[in-house]
Amino acid sequence: MRRSIATVCLSGTLEDKLEAAAAAGFDGVEIFENDLIASPRTPEQVRRHCEELGLSVDLYQPFRDFEAVGPEVLRHNLRRAEHKFDLMRRLGTDTVLVCSSVSPDAVDDDDLAAEQLHLLARRAHEHGLRVAYEALAWGRHVSTWEHSARIVERAGHAALGLCLDSFHVLSRGGDIAGIRDVPAEKLFFLQLADAPRLDMNVLQWSRHHRLFPGQGAFDLPAFVEHVLRAGYNGPLSLEVFNDVFRQSAPGRAAVDAMRSLIALEEQLGQRRTAVTGGRPGPARLPSAPEPAGYSFVELAVDDDSAPQVSRALAAMGFAHLGQHRSKPVQLWQQGTARVLLNGGAGERTAVSALAVETADPVRSARRAEMLLAPALSRTRGPSEADLTAVAAPDGTSVFFCRTGAGDGTSWLSDFILTGTGHSAPTGLDRIDHVALAQPFDSFDEATLFYRSVLGLDPQDDTEYAAPYGLVRSRAVSDPGRRVRIVLDGTVLRRGAWVPGVPDPQHIAFATDDIFTCARTMRERGAPLLAVSDNYYQDLDARLGLDPELLAAMRACRVLYDRDGRGEFFHVYTEVFGSRVFFEAVQRVGGYTGHGAVNAPVRMAAHRAARQGGDRSAGP
Amino acid sequence: MRRSIATVCLSGTLEDKLEAAAAAGFDGVEIFENDLIASPRTPEQVRRHCEELGLSVDLYQPFRDFEAVGPEVLRHNLRRAEHKFDLMRRLGTDTVLVCSSVSPDAVDDDDLAAEQLHLLARRAHEHGLRVAYEALAWGRHVSTWEHSARIVERAGHAALGLCLDSFHVLSRGGDIAGIRDVPAEKLFFLQLADAPRLDMNVLQWSRHHRLFPGQGAFDLPAFVEHVLRAGYNGPLSLEVFNDVFRQSAPGRAAVDAMRSLIALEEQLGQRRTAVTGGRPGPARLPSAPEPAGYSFVELAVDDDSAPQVSRALAAMGFAHLGQHRSKPVQLWQQGTARVLLNGGAGERTAVSALAVETADPVRSARRAEMLLAPALSRTRGPSEADLTAVAAPDGTSVFFCRTGAGDGTSWLSDFILTGTGHSAPTGLDRIDHVALAQPFDSFDEATLFYRSVLGLDPQDDTEYAAPYGLVRSRAVSDPGRRVRIVLDGTVLRRGAWVPGVPDPQHIAFATDDIFTCARTMRERGAPLLAVSDNYYQDLDARLGLDPELLAAMRACRVLYDRDGRGEFFHVYTEVFGSRVFFEAVQRVGGYTGHGAVNAPVRMAAHRAARQGGDRSAGP
Repeated sequence: MRRSIATVCLSGTLEDKLEAAAAAGFDGVEIFENDLIASPRTPEQVRRHCEELGLSVDLYQPFRDFEAVGPEVLRHNLRRAEHKFDLMRRLGTDTVLVCSSVSPDAVDDDDLAAEQLHLLARRAHEHGLRVAYEALAWGRHVSTWEHSARIVERAGHAALGLCLDSFHVLSRGGDIAGIRDVPAEKLFFLQLADAPRLDMNVLQWSRHHRLFPGQGAFDLPAFVEHVLRAGYNGPLSLEVFNDVFRQSAPGRAAVDAMRSLIALEEQLGQRRTAVTGGRPGPARLPSAPEPAGYSFVELAVDDDSAPQVSRALAAMGFAHLGQHRSKPVQLWQQGTARVLLNGGAGERTAVSALAVETADPVRSARRAEMLLAPALSRTRGPSEADLTAVAAPDGTSVFFCRTGAGDGTSWLSDFILTGTGHSAPTGLDRIDHVALAQPFDSFDEATLFYRSVLGLDPQDDTEYAAPYGLVRSRAVSDPGRRVRIVLDGTVLRRGAWVPGVPDPQHIAFATDDIFTCARTMRERGAPLLAVSDNYYQDLDARLGLDPELLAAMRACRVLYDRDGRGEFFHVYTEVFGSRVFFEAVQRVGGYTGHGAVNAPVRMAAHRAARQGGDRSAGP
Repeated sequence: MRRSIATVCLSGTLEDKLEAAAAAGFDGVEIFENDLIASPRTPEQVRRHCEELGLSVDLYQPFRDFEAVGPEVLRHNLRRAEHKFDLMRRLGTDTVLVCSSVSPDAVDDDDLAAEQLHLLARRAHEHGLRVAYEALAWGRHVSTWEHSARIVERAGHAALGLCLDSFHVLSRGGDIAGIRDVPAEKLFFLQLADAPRLDMNVLQWSRHHRLFPGQGAFDLPAFVEHVLRAGYNGPLSLEVFNDVFRQSAPGRAAVDAMRSLIALEEQLGQRRTAVTGGRPGPARLPSAPEPAGYSFVELAVDDDSAPQVSRALAAMGFAHLGQHRSKPVQLWQQGTARVLLNGGAGERTAVSALAVETADPVRSARRAEMLLAPALSRTRGPSEADLTAVAAPDGTSVFFCRTGAGDGTSWLSDFILTGTGHSAPTGLDRIDHVALAQPFDSFDEATLFYRSVLGLDPQDDTEYAAPYGLVRSRAVSDPGRRVRIVLDGTVLRRGAWVPGVPDPQHIAFATDDIFTCARTMRERGAPLLAVSDNYYQDLDARLGLDPELLAAMRACRVLYDRDGRGEFFHVYTEVFGSRVFFEAVQRVGGYTGHGAVNAPVRMAAHRAARQGGDRSAGP
C-alpha cells in the first residue's frame, strides 16, 4: 500500500515537513492548507519540491463549511472552492477534503447537502478533480460516517466520495462493520490516527491528543481491514494532531510515523487482508521471535561510581564472573540475572544497553532495522561474537542475543570466565524489569518502538504525582512477562526546577523471598534506601497488615503494593552516580504492576539521601 | 483574614513547600497526606518545622471514602481514622478533610452517611479534633455542597462541619446564594481555586487545570462573599492542583499564590464584605490608578543590532529627539509613541521595560510592591527623576511614570532634547500594544500580575497552531484600551527543536492610515516583512475583498483580520537581533483582537527571512 502523511503531523515549515516525510520514506503527503498559506513558496514551487523529493500530493485539506446553506452563502462557498481548485491544479493534486459543516449557516437537510455537494463535485470534475467528504465527529448536522455515506450516495456524482478518518469514526464508538458495504468507488481517502481513550470534548481530544497507530487505544487493524475489504486502494495516510509531535524534530517524528504504518501493515497481513495496490508491497517483515528473557543489562559506569556499583552488586549477591576479552567490561551474575559493567564507555553511569534473549538474533535484528530502528555499529575483536544492536528512542542500545554455554556464537564466549569475586547469592535470580526515564518528546515513540520491534505489549499504564511534577509510567512486556520494560516520563517537559534525581533508571531483580534477601543484603552493607516511617504508618492505617509483617517490612526497608491479583514487595537502593539505582522485588500471586504507587516515596527518599550526602560533604 | 495554602499547590518535598509558603508570607498550610508520607521527617519534626517557620497546620487532608458503608468496611474505616487522628495530634492540627466517597462500597443512603459521619465526629471530638466534610464534584452519591450540607445537618454533631471548595462548587454551576444560609458554626473550612472553563471530565479538570484566584474564569469574589456573609471566619486557603505549578520553583509559585489572595481580598473589600477575623487585616492596598497609556517602551539594544533598530525607527517616522543625561539611552518619538533605545544594558536586543502613564506613580509603585512585585533599584544621577520600577514575571521592568513637559519630576527631564535626527512622521502616533513571549512556567502568573498590579483585565484569549507548536495568546488591557499587553506562550514547554524566532517580542504602533504609512515606510527603506503570496490568495478565496484593497495590501505587505466588530490591518518588520520586531496596525471599527490569526504566517516569514539571511551569509 502507498503510505502518506499529512503535513499537520509534523513540526516546522512546509519545507521542513516535506523533507522529513521524504526522508522517512513516505510516498505522498496531504498538504494542510495553513502550511501552504504560511509558505513563501508558490504552489508550483511546492509541487516541484515534492516531485524532487519523490512525494505525490495525495490530498489538499481541509475545505470547511461548504454544504447545506442558503443561496447567498452557497455562491460565496462556490467562489471559494473555485479558488482552491485552481490552487490544487497548481499544486498537482486531484483530491480535496471537504469536512462536514460546523457552521451555524448550515441547515439540517440531507437533500440540500447532497444537492450542493453534487454541485461542488460537478465543478471539481470540470477541473479533473474530486471531492472527498468527511464526517467530523463534531459536525453540526453530519457527524457519523454512515450519515456522510448516505449523503454521498444521495448526491450521486462520480467525483464525490468519502474520506474515512479513523479518529472521527472510532472516537464515537458504534458499529464499523458496515464500512465493508460501502462501494469501493466511493472510498476516496483513508486517514489514520490512533488516540488514548479520554473523557473530554471530542474536538479538543482530536486537536491535541491523536497518536500514530499503535500508540493509543483504538483498534486500527480492525478498522482498516473493513476499509480494505470494501475495496479501498488509495494510500494509508496519517493525520495526527498532537501537541508534542507539533513541536518535536520532524525528521524523527516522521520515522516514528512510518514505523507505525509498517507495524500496522504487518497486523493487517496477519489478518490475511487482501492487500491491493498498484505496486508491490514492502519486503515482508520477519515476525518478532518471542523474547525469552534478558540476556544481560549493561551499565556504563564512570570512574567515580564504579567502585560503589561493584560493592553494591557484591553485597546484593552478584558474583563478578568474567572479564571481556578486549574491553573494560565486567560480567556480574546471580541466577540468570547478568549485569555488565562497562568502564570504557566514557559516559556517566547509566543503563547503556538491554540485551534480549531471542532464538534468532539475526531475524530479530533484521526486523528491527526494517522497522527503522537505527542500527548501531560496534567494534569487536577477532573471533568475538557479532552482537547486533539497535538504538531505542532514548538512546539505550538494544541487543539481540543467544546465550549458550559452549556455543562459540554466544556473547558469553567473549568473556574470560575468571571466577573471581565470588559472592554468596541472596536469591535475586533474574531480572524482573528495567525502568527507563524517557525523554519528554519520545514517550509515545518508545511505546511503539518496543511494541513493534520487540513485540512487547503495553500493560499497566499509570500516572502519579511525584515531588517534582506528574509522572506517567507504562510497562511493556511479552505475554510471558519475561522481558518487562517500564517507561517513565513526565507529563510536562521539566524546567529548571528539578532538584531530585533527573531521569532515573533502574534494574529490578526478582527474588522469591524478599525478606531473607533484603536482610542479607543489609548485613552485607548493600546501600538500601531508607524509607520514611510515615510510609509504614500509612500502610498500617490503610491496609491493617499483620503487625509482624509490617515490622519486618520496616526493618528491611521493604515497600508494598497490592492489586486485585496479588502482592508486590520491593526494596530500592540508593542512587549510583546521578541516575541509576537497583531494586529487589518479589511478586506474590498474579500482581502485574511495578509498584508505581510507591515511586513518590522513593523519589523523596532519594532526594533526602542526596541532601544528607550534600550536607556530609559540606564544610 | 488568615491566609493558607495546601502543600499540594507547590512543587518539591514537604520541606521545600513549607519553606516556600512561609517565605511568601502565608499564615498556615494544609498538609496533603502524600507529602507527609513521603517525608523522612516525623510528624513531630514537621510540626516543629512549621512552628519555626511561623506556619500553623490548618488542615490535614484528604481522608477518603469513609461514609455510607457496611459494618465491616466501617470498622476498617474507623480504624484508619483513629490512626490519622493520632497522626494529627502529633502534627498539631485539629481539622481533617473528609471527601465525599467515590468508593463502590458506598451506598446511596443519606441517613447512613449522616449516622456514620456522626460516629466519626464523635471519635474526632474525643481527640479534640473536628471533621470537615466536603462534596467532591465527582462524589459517588454526594457531589453538591447542598447535599453535603444536608448530611452534616442531619448528622448533628458539633465536631462535624463543612469544607467548601470553590472548584467543586463552581465547576458544577448552579445557585450558590444559598451558601449564605449555612450556619456559621458549620463552616469549618474554605478552599479556593480558580479554573479555566473546560469541557472535560470534572475529575481530570480538577486534578490538572486548577489555577490561583484571578487566573481563571470563576467568579471567586462572589463565591467567597457568600461564605463570609454566612459567618465563616477561618482561613482563605488555596488548594490548586495544576500540572505546571507542580513542577515550577515553589518559592515563586507561593508568591504568585499569595498575590492571588491579596488581590482577592481587595475585590472582597470592594464588595464591602464585612471581613472578620481574629487579627487586624493587612495594610490597605492602594487602588490601581487607571493607566493613561504607555509613557515609553525601552529596548535594550546590543551593538550588532543597534544601527538596524535606529535605521528602522527612522524609516518608520520616528525622530531621535533626545539623549539621556547620564546613560547611553536615546529617546525616539512619533506622536505619543516613545521608544527608548538603551545601549548600556549589556543585554541582547530585547524589550527591557514598559512604562505606564499614571496620575500617581508613587501610589502605583506602592500598590505593586504590596502585591509582591519585586522592586527594582535603579542608579540615577543627581536631579534625575526617581523612576520606580518593578519586575514583571518575565523579567521585563515595569515603570510607573508621569510625563509632563516642564515638570521637573517627569522622566522626560532626564533627557537632553537634542532635536537631532528629525524624520517626517508616517502617522504612527501611539503604541497600540506590546507583545511579550512569556516563559512557560509563568504564563498564568503573568496574567495575574498585570491584572492585579496594573488593573488590566484579560481580553481575547486564543490558541493557534504555529509552525513550531501550539501557541496561546492572551491580551490584557485597561477598559479604555490605552495599555494593551499581549502575553504569548507555548502550550507545552519548547524543546531543542525551535529553529524559528525564539520568544518573540514586539511593539505595535497604531496608525489611522495603514496604507499611506506602510507605503511611506517602504519608500524609506523600513525592513517590512515579506508576506507569502499564498496568504493573499487565501484571503481572496475566503473573504472576497475588494480587488483594489487586496492589491494594496499585497503591495504594502499588509495583513488582515476581522471580527464581528471591526477590521484589523497590520504590517510587521523583520526581526532585529534574535527576537524583537515592530508592527504597524490600524483598527477599524470596534475590532478588539490583535491579529493572532496571522501570527503563524508571520512566524514562517520570519523563519524564511532568517534562512535567506543565513544563505546570503553563507559561503
